[in-house]
Amino acid sequence: MRIGIDAMGGDNAPDVEVQGAIAACEFLGDDDRIVLVGDKAAIEPHLARAGEAADKMEIHHASERIGMDETPVEALRAKPDNSIGVMSQMHRRGEIDACISAGNTGACVAAAQMYLRRLPGVHRPGIAIVTPTYYGPVAICDVGANVNCRPQHLYQYGVMASVYVSAICGVENPRIALLSIGEEDAKGNELVKRTQQLFRGDPHLRFVGNAEGRDLFRGSCEVLVCDGFVGNVVLKLMEGMAEGVLRAMMEEMLTSVPEEAQKIKHAAGGIMSKYDFNEYGGAPMLGVGGIWIICHGASDHRGIKNAVRVAAGFAKCRVNEQITELLGEQGRADE
Amino acid sequence: MRIGIDAMGGDNAPDVEVQGAIAACEFLGDDDRIVLVGDKAAIEPHLARAGEAADKMEIHHASERIGMDETPVEALRAKPDNSIGVMSQMHRRGEIDACISAGNTGACVAAAQMYLRRLPGVHRPGIAIVTPTYYGPVAICDVGANVNCRPQHLYQYGVMASVYVSAICGVENPRIALLSIGEEDAKGNELVKRTQQLFRGDPHLRFVGNAEGRDLFRGSCEVLVCDGFVGNVVLKLMEGMAEGVLRAMMEEMLTSVPEEAQKIKHAAGGIMSKYDFNEYGGAPMLGVGGIWIICHGASDHRGIKNAVRVAAGFAKCRVNEQITELLGEQGRADE
Repeated sequence: MRIGIDAMGGDNAPDVEVQGAIAACEFLGDDDRIVLVGDKAAIEPHLARAGEAADKMEIHHASERIGMDETPVEALRAKPDNSIGVMSQMHRRGEIDACISAGNTGACVAAAQMYLRRLPGVHRPGIAIVTPTYYGPVAICDVGANVNCRPQHLYQYGVMASVYVSAICGVENPRIALLSIGEEDAKGNELVKRTQQLFRGDPHLRFVGNAEGRDLFRGSCEVLVCDGFVGNVVLKLMEGMAEGVLRAMMEEMLTSVPEEAQKIKHAAGGIMSKYDFNEYGGAPMLGVGGIWIICHGASDHRGIKNAVRVAAGFAKCRVNEQITELLGEQGRADE
Repeated sequence: MRIGIDAMGGDNAPDVEVQGAIAACEFLGDDDRIVLVGDKAAIEPHLARAGEAADKMEIHHASERIGMDETPVEALRAKPDNSIGVMSQMHRRGEIDACISAGNTGACVAAAQMYLRRLPGVHRPGIAIVTPTYYGPVAICDVGANVNCRPQHLYQYGVMASVYVSAICGVENPRIALLSIGEEDAKGNELVKRTQQLFRGDPHLRFVGNAEGRDLFRGSCEVLVCDGFVGNVVLKLMEGMAEGVLRAMMEEMLTSVPEEAQKIKHAAGGIMSKYDFNEYGGAPMLGVGGIWIICHGASDHRGIKNAVRVAAGFAKCRVNEQITELLGEQGRADE
């Protein structure tokens, strides 16, 4: 397997990307390779210090970089040699089998659709993140690919995320819930109410109805479906809140039990790592005709390393083939 | 001041409501009264045990109750003697100066609009909650009154919540942010982009642009504007997450430092109370022609007690008069 990594994407590129690629070599088989896509002159010095791992890595030059603030489609057009677009085209030509980027998410989504198209029957790709909870992993989809969702998009997110969480996390027959503002079917906005009807009309999915924000932590589902605007707000709120609550808790603890400062900091670190986006790696873009893993812009080398693990698992478990198969049944690809 | 409390609203009514009302008597002046609205036979036994506080309380009989699962407008019509509707009509007739309920939120919003109308120039009422953060209070509006928002609604939420947070929390010239999925103006859905233009066109408000979920905990604004669907998801997510993260943290701590179990539990309790909805009391419905405070359905007596404090503060600070004044300026009431 050949895995492409956008070396110019994240907030600390290319440092973090190259370090992550080196660390990821432990996951690779004899024939596997990592292809770093980006400015050759900037990458080479880092690679020179990689030792044996360098044998498993290649550089594919791309001279341009899309910034976090740029408008995706415009930037892809104005910078034809940008690393995200170049990497997507390599994937289309079969030169690599997966793409990983910590860069501009909108540009990744646009490039993936532009160059890899969508899987047969898929209306819109959706990004799925897997959140750890006390009761086990929950996949939330979409967390930012699509802010103008129609009911059919949300319904397919449920189907695709079910395949993913079952293939990758080993959850059998996952329970799908729709994020709303009350458990009763009558609550929610128009989008939620119409999506519900689609889920209720598909007896082969394990749809458990509406869920509220707090249900995410109460073990009531393994797949939580929402539009990309709401999902992205939720994702970032969780990030900020874990940070905020833990900091407050640690300060309170240190004041109460100052003699155990070391142990308290250690325990806080343990929890923090559970909510650390770097630990769970990357979020797959479900529904595109290839493997596309998106990392947090502030990823460190562990985030990139774990994204390589996710990409390899995605290929091994044949997630795309399963999505295509499941969408092909029961008219799930209809408009 | 005469404050109405829906005695039949919450999950543990009328127990919690009467206990809360008794506890709230400490906030009342000599001429202030609390009017408990609901089933007289169910309320009286509780009141009999109230001691001196009973002198400050009256009962206004209402024979019907709207359940949490009922469809608001239909229930208000089908049950003409329901406590929420009866209380709202008393407010309209001037028999009470404020309404408090832990009942069906949708029914409260519908009854408030039906019987009290909106303040001049207000397009839609919005519910504002004040969240404690490390950097100070942040008012989030709307958290559930209006799930079909137009840009003008969100813009007015910014104006109204600014008045509230400045009057009640003493924040001078609060910074208003719009909840979105990236700080750049180009990010977000159509609603956010069009709302932005309204805020940008009003130089007299202190609009600081888009904020992401994590910014809520980073001290970047005192007012966070969003539509009622997103706001309600955020509210409940925060509730579930504070619970989930704290429980995980406490278990980790107890394992690491078992000999300090008491102190750890005490510290956790201290933090938990900061995120406890009962501590901050009730959320005002901004924009209606009266004072309407909504409590969490699972409120305990402290939640009701603190809602009385909020209602009294709302009246004292003349929040509605200030909202009307500010909306009347600069064409802020235009369609």
